[in-house]
Amino acid sequence: MRAVTTVDGELAWQEHPDPVPGRGEVLVRVAAAGINAADLLQRRGRYPAPPGAPVDIPGLEFAGAVVAGGPATGRFAPGDRVMAVTGGGGQAELAVVPEEWLLPVPDGVTFESAGGFPEAFSTAQDALFSQARLGAGERVLVTGAAGGVGTAAVQLARAAGAHVIASVRDPDRHQAVAALGADEVIVPEAVGDHGPYDVSLELVGAPSLNEALAHLATGARVVVIGVGAGARLELNLLALMGSRATIGGSTLRSRSSDEKAAVARLVEEFALTLLADGRVTVPVAATLPMAEATAAYERFAAGGKLGKIVLTAG
Amino acid sequence: MRAVTTVDGELAWQEHPDPVPGRGEVLVRVAAAGINAADLLQRRGRYPAPPGAPVDIPGLEFAGAVVAGGPATGRFAPGDRVMAVTGGGGQAELAVVPEEWLLPVPDGVTFESAGGFPEAFSTAQDALFSQARLGAGERVLVTGAAGGVGTAAVQLARAAGAHVIASVRDPDRHQAVAALGADEVIVPEAVGDHGPYDVSLELVGAPSLNEALAHLATGARVVVIGVGAGARLELNLLALMGSRATIGGSTLRSRSSDEKAAVARLVEEFALTLLADGRVTVPVAATLPMAEATAAYERFAAGGKLGKIVLTAG
Repeated sequence: MRAVTTVDGELAWQEHPDPVPGRGEVLVRVAAAGINAADLLQRRGRYPAPPGAPVDIPGLEFAGAVVAGGPATGRFAPGDRVMAVTGGGGQAELAVVPEEWLLPVPDGVTFESAGGFPEAFSTAQDALFSQARLGAGERVLVTGAAGGVGTAAVQLARAAGAHVIASVRDPDRHQAVAALGADEVIVPEAVGDHGPYDVSLELVGAPSLNEALAHLATGARVVVIGVGAGARLELNLLALMGSRATIGGSTLRSRSSDEKAAVARLVEEFALTLLADGRVTVPVAATLPMAEATAAYERFAAGGKLGKIVLTAG
Repeated sequence: MRAVTTVDGELAWQEHPDPVPGRGEVLVRVAAAGINAADLLQRRGRYPAPPGAPVDIPGLEFAGAVVAGGPATGRFAPGDRVMAVTGGGGQAELAVVPEEWLLPVPDGVTFESAGGFPEAFSTAQDALFSQARLGAGERVLVTGAAGGVGTAAVQLARAAGAHVIASVRDPDRHQAVAALGADEVIVPEAVGDHGPYDVSLELVGAPSLNEALAHLATGARVVVIGVGAGARLELNLLALMGSRATIGGSTLRSRSSDEKAAVARLVEEFALTLLADGRVTVPVAATLPMAEATAAYERFAAGGKLGKIVLTAG
């Protein structure tokens, strides 16, 4: 098979041996694979792949058709349309993952959309509900809301009955984010005027978080998922005591195989049902062939886009 | 009545009008009242009393005998032995509080012990269980474990089946803290050798917390209650993301009357039952008359004590 391959910080489209599914694993012919911030970090050597994932093939999510299952599999049959979050190796013609991590791709959802669904929606659902315990009627701030995780979070929070305040730097993206269901779309400088926030999903980093911290409701839960703009926060513990807020962080990638399977089951129950019903969509800003991964990564890094950049195979 | 009174940063023992219980309130003849860190802050003008509390009479907890109830009271009768956390005014011969905040003093528990019970045990129980959701079998770090909240937390955590690691600066206090039920008693410099911690109760401040943060278990909950050693923390958000830990803070004093009543009911169910059964005790380092409040506050501020400093009236 061919795969996007990191070679000394550059990306190439190279031949690799076909992966072979082991016990409990399924081999998938990849049709589409979203790009995530972690791919860019990994390319620069700053976020090595976890054990079991290919060290030189990026890609934390993919969608495609089942080729074959290894021993002790059986939920999915050859030809079934599936998608998954994976520890790495998604940006390739073939990928292998534990069957428990797979989600079915609903009828009527294209592979391009499906390739950009698993990582963003799993991250957003886990952060908003499993980590921050967002409840119906609560006020949630989503920063960086025009990106992949941001657009997923806006839609999921709204579907769960929360009041969604979306912070988006580029005013040209405000209308599109409002159309996804955000009750209020604001520029980052206005975060202080739209609180208090019961939940804050931080997708930008320390400077953005610092602004939100001053406008939390009593008992607020902050979950940090993205720190592209900075990871060092000067925290005033007295303010935290006064608001009885909590600050937490989360990643999916470092979790055990069983934990990832558990996330997949929760996503299958909520976000996937919404996708099947057309109540959430995957905004795809651009689709490029895997052979043009370098250009696609540049497009991702440039920002100012709505939703995902998705690579396609074949 | 006479009361400990803050006058330009000094403490006096002065006459005040007797307080009168309003609707839902009870008048108590105070027998004993513990000193807390907030009293010292308030004396220095840095922690003003909340609305409804006397502005110039410190005291966040007391024990005594009911004198009379106002309209819409009735759980307690004149002469009943009671104790409570209060917003202020506890260090006086008479105090008024909502009846819902009161706890009965169990038979066999002295007023000196009872006067040092409510604030420490309510704070510790709320922080460990309502905030940090400490579970049986989990490893909990309690820093500053020889103080009032610390000794309460060690005992409550142990009674709930947790594995308690108590950090105590003064080695002369280690044996006494172990006798309260700590599984391990360590000096602060050894925090790194005894992790990972599922829960960390921070009673010292930012430098101490910084040490604990590097040794958290996945999904750990940190609750900050005391920041005497510093309130500004330089937080690495990537570390928080990797461990999926949360950092929260809490105070009782800023809560609504209903919230304080809710805490009292939880304490009545758990910590008070343990006190009545003799399974937890209130270590009292020293007892002094309220007229000697200045000396008592100095003793409190000096540190190096085990448990509470309690003022007595009459």
